[in-house]
Amino acid sequence: VRYQGRTDVMLAELAPGTVMAGTFTRSATRSAPVLDCQAKITGPSDGGAAIVVNSGNSNAFTGQRGVDAVAGVCAAVAAQMGIAPERVFTSSTGVIGEPLPWDRITAAIPALQGALDAGGMAAAARAIMTTDTFPKGAAASVDVGGRSVQIAGMAKGSGMIAPDMATMLVYVFTDAVIGQADLQALVSRSCDATFNCITVDSDTSTSDTLLMAATGASGVDVTGHAGFAAALQGVMLDLAQQVVRDGEGASKFIEVQVRSAADDADARRVAMAIANSPLVKTAIAGQDANWGRIVMAVGKSGARADRDRLSIRFGDLWVARDGWRVPDYSEAAASAYMKQQELVIGVEMGLGQGASTVWTCDLTHGYIDINADYRS
Amino acid sequence: VRYQGRTDVMLAELAPGTVMAGTFTRSATRSAPVLDCQAKITGPSDGGAAIVVNSGNSNAFTGQRGVDAVAGVCAAVAAQMGIAPERVFTSSTGVIGEPLPWDRITAAIPALQGALDAGGMAAAARAIMTTDTFPKGAAASVDVGGRSVQIAGMAKGSGMIAPDMATMLVYVFTDAVIGQADLQALVSRSCDATFNCITVDSDTSTSDTLLMAATGASGVDVTGHAGFAAALQGVMLDLAQQVVRDGEGASKFIEVQVRSAADDADARRVAMAIANSPLVKTAIAGQDANWGRIVMAVGKSGARADRDRLSIRFGDLWVARDGWRVPDYSEAAASAYMKQQELVIGVEMGLGQGASTVWTCDLTHGYIDINADYRS
Repeated sequence: VRYQGRTDVMLAELAPGTVMAGTFTRSATRSAPVLDCQAKITGPSDGGAAIVVNSGNSNAFTGQRGVDAVAGVCAAVAAQMGIAPERVFTSSTGVIGEPLPWDRITAAIPALQGALDAGGMAAAARAIMTTDTFPKGAAASVDVGGRSVQIAGMAKGSGMIAPDMATMLVYVFTDAVIGQADLQALVSRSCDATFNCITVDSDTSTSDTLLMAATGASGVDVTGHAGFAAALQGVMLDLAQQVVRDGEGASKFIEVQVRSAADDADARRVAMAIANSPLVKTAIAGQDANWGRIVMAVGKSGARADRDRLSIRFGDLWVARDGWRVPDYSEAAASAYMKQQELVIGVEMGLGQGASTVWTCDLTHGYIDINADYRS
Repeated sequence: VRYQGRTDVMLAELAPGTVMAGTFTRSATRSAPVLDCQAKITGPSDGGAAIVVNSGNSNAFTGQRGVDAVAGVCAAVAAQMGIAPERVFTSSTGVIGEPLPWDRITAAIPALQGALDAGGMAAAARAIMTTDTFPKGAAASVDVGGRSVQIAGMAKGSGMIAPDMATMLVYVFTDAVIGQADLQALVSRSCDATFNCITVDSDTSTSDTLLMAATGASGVDVTGHAGFAAALQGVMLDLAQQVVRDGEGASKFIEVQVRSAADDADARRVAMAIANSPLVKTAIAGQDANWGRIVMAVGKSGARADRDRLSIRFGDLWVARDGWRVPDYSEAAASAYMKQQELVIGVEMGLGQGASTVWTCDLTHGYIDINADYRS
């Protein structure tokens, strides 16, 4: 469709009876494929299903022509695979506002169908990449009463990452048996604790989509099974953290832990204010233990805060307690910590029981390089 | 106090009876000088007054020692100048979380008083700079019934610029006669249309302060005078735009005009989402006419939006109308426009009468360079 010399269309075939669930961007300018998926996601689980993804062009802000492109792709895939068009789910990711040359996608469908491979997840994860530097996959096996259920997922995402509902393109598969409402509830809850807790650059995509498919092929019903829910959340967290590790230009992986906030919502506000602050992120890129900028981010977050109860640590190294730099503060120790590739920023608000953990990366010259000429 | 080889303390002496007004950051971690100014600003206008500013250390997140430092500086200045400590207003700007060596400030007061000069605004504007690359000043003269009133202001600010209430350090002076409540109302209204409409990096300082002093020396009462209000707003807009032009690493000055939004609040949400988007700002740094990212920013802003009514222009060049790229779109023309140093991004929401204009700059390698090693 767009990229020379590498695959940029992905096709997944799903067994008859597969149950679908998904979460999608809340952007007011979401793309035609997102709107189409949202309309179809709760439909009946009759017959087979398919997921088709192209990278390089997001088919967003393309008006009626964008809607027509989605319908055209779905009709072609349905005809080729002998399934209903309502069971074809599409995603597109890439440049916004350019017409999608969708005839290039339909032209590729027969070849893609011929190449379908039960072990093809790695190649599929590669086909959905844009500025990603590595394909992202995760898997788990769950024991349910002595029988085994599989979960496998893939994701793409590197920039324009500040999920609001879901994020980026994520596809998770399982052979478990589970109803649509139960699957959707599991997916939504896991999303809140994983993809909705990462940010690269505070910008929210028009295409963010997570689709989950439960084929039922194992014959094992996982409804209400805590182990399955935990494994699913683990797979999604793994994928979400891979997206942050591959954040555009990222040189550091950062976990922000906010504790003892007035409530969870306030904790999240503080964590996201820190994770999205260009000044915090550039200081980390420069390996500068500039914890004053964390104070700044707490202050601007809008959360309830009492300066004189605020404490801050890097990893296990406390740098400020109760509104003041610790008496034995060591710039050398703080600077040594900042040289690590994986950093933890801990904030104690000293107000209540609210907690939140989010993941982000630093802001480097690489981000500018990638985004000053992405289209060209 | 901190910088070698240049002045970093500013002292302003104000005539007896000077009326003060101000606006301050709403940060929950605002600095000791800000809290002290807020407590004093509405006090009686008896006797002379003074403003003392140091750059390089913000005296923020410094606990009781920060409060003591402010009290110490105010007492020393009051004693030296023969005024009440309640009439001494201080600001500090620079690194957060380090103890302020305030004895260096009090030691400099006698020399500063000896150097007081009615024409010293330019040197004063230079003394309050941190990462600023040029001093910022603006002035106006207003005719009030045949008599002349003067307004002069200075500002510092370059990074950590996303004003919430007021911003940065700004000092405006006039010889007009006006009551405190009237002056405060004028200052607050002008602030909303000037400093509250700029952003460099979405980060809000712990020290943002605007102080205005009306000495009354002209003997001309400006209460309710529209020309004075307009001139004051003009001086403040000039200073605000200078801050954006000197945004850390900035290579472009950008005006974002949002029109026909559902209401003014929505228009401002959209304008700020565009102005703060790292992806929009890096595209502009790369002179890339990537208007799809403006669509993204509208979508994530939280404002009511109808994709199919949205229109976007660069200057007078329409690139999208009613949810779709214009039929005669010319990448060459759009790219040529992006090479200009001053850019206008226009957005028509097609929904109502809401309007907002904000100013920002691009996001370049220079920003990363400055902020990855500001402290060292």
